[in-house]
Amino acid sequence: MEKEKFNIVVFSGDMDKVLAAFILATTAASMGMETSMFFTFWGLNVLRKKKLTSGKNILQKMMNFMNQGGASRLSLSKFNMLGMGPAMMKVLMKQAKVPSIEEFIKTAKGLGVKLIACTTTFSFMGFEKDDFIDGIDSYAGAATFMGMACEGKVSYFI
Amino acid sequence: MEKEKFNIVVFSGDMDKVLAAFILATTAASMGMETSMFFTFWGLNVLRKKKLTSGKNILQKMMNFMNQGGASRLSLSKFNMLGMGPAMMKVLMKQAKVPSIEEFIKTAKGLGVKLIACTTTFSFMGFEKDDFIDGIDSYAGAATFMGMACEGKVSYFI
Amino acid sequence: MEKEKFNIVVFSGDMDKVLAAFILATTAASMGMETSMFFTFWGLNVLRKKKLTSGKNILQKMMNFMNQGGASRLSLSKFNMLGMGPAMMKVLMKQAKVPSIEEFIKTAKGLGVKLIACTTTFSFMGFEKDDFIDGIDSYAGAATFMGMACEGKVSYFI
Repeated sequence: MEKEKFNIVVFSGDMDKVLAAFILATTAASMGMETSMFFTFWGLNVLRKKKLTSGKNILQKMMNFMNQGGASRLSLSKFNMLGMGPAMMKVLMKQAKVPSIEEFIKTAKGLGVKLIACTTTFSFMGFEKDDFIDGIDSYAGAATFMGMACEGKVSYFI
Repeated sequence: MEKEKFNIVVFSGDMDKVLAAFILATTAASMGMETSMFFTFWGLNVLRKKKLTSGKNILQKMMNFMNQGGASRLSLSKFNMLGMGPAMMKVLMKQAKVPSIEEFIKTAKGLGVKLIACTTTFSFMGFEKDDFIDGIDSYAGAATFMGMACEGKVSYFI
Repeated sequence: MEKEKFNIVVFSGDMDKVLAAFILATTAASMGMETSMFFTFWGLNVLRKKKLTSGKNILQKMMNFMNQGGASRLSLSKFNMLGMGPAMMKVLMKQAKVPSIEEFIKTAKGLGVKLIACTTTFSFMGFEKDDFIDGIDSYAGAATFMGMACEGKVSYFI
């Protein structure tokens, strides 16, 4: 029997929403579903290396300087409070033995979740493959994703 | 013939998004769909009692003191303006005879919509069943929800 | 063979999310899917004319004065910075030859994407058909949309 497919567009780069996406993705993968996460827009920050600048022109560099990448420094959609909220949330998660986003990336990969980076966003943000962490399964555009979404049993935009 | 299933992950606790979720859920239920709402993260505020503190340790108490529960005091995703926006929205809704969130909870239950509280969030926010209103149909984790989502005709993450 | 259906609830009026919605919708339509976008709440701003006031009573006028319509003046969900963020984003998009939202509306229509305005929101925001741009395919409520969502292969809430 063919496996059910589950996929998520991770548009948001907020720690809380990204966490929810990883909880759903790893749960689905554990249940035997073929799971893919398609990171786009702010969601790409999850897969970006921590580096101070990226982008090819001054405006892209300015935008990416504000919009820092790195799974460990995502902000919260609420109560961000200049980073105090995310710090509190990280302690709350650790206390409850909920994995961090970095750990969730590893767990997801271990369970066979496909991590896909959206190349459509690359064009206007000026990203290059070198700006991203190792272990990304593929780089693809919106058409590839829509093809996947059509085959999915469940698909979310987060 | 089996009924079509519709389910929503209510991740957001913003009044406007929660309102949209209830409009879709009650509409689907009125049309004869088997409808479930799975409240998680900030969305749990909809089902929380109004009480000043909850949580088991000081950090959880601090987080929950900022993140107050109660369906009548949700904030807006835009124009919140320290609560003036939600107050305006409530008057606009009343003028147009749109039910309040509290009323929508009752209507939803009357139509057979299942209200489910996410236990995964409980662990790190330190919630207990006593923090929640009566009438919740079940307490469940992400795996239960993914099972439901797979059987659904339509499923949203809000 | 019947065409696959794809539909999106555009709840958000944030430029970045609306852009993502149009990228997905036009991609799906190009791939031959029957695509519909259902604009509701803040998402209606995309289809509103630029005019200073709308609404039938003083409170609706106040709300709509804050919540200005017009596809060219949507704000960003992050880094809005009193409009500087959206201005930067527009230049980034132009540099990368990504169409503006106004251009995307035309492209979407050219590809046969159905643009639907949610009448449920009209009631409490005090909107009238005259507040909206030409070219909207239909005005419909939540029940009509849920019927469409049920027939869809993929459906998102953005």
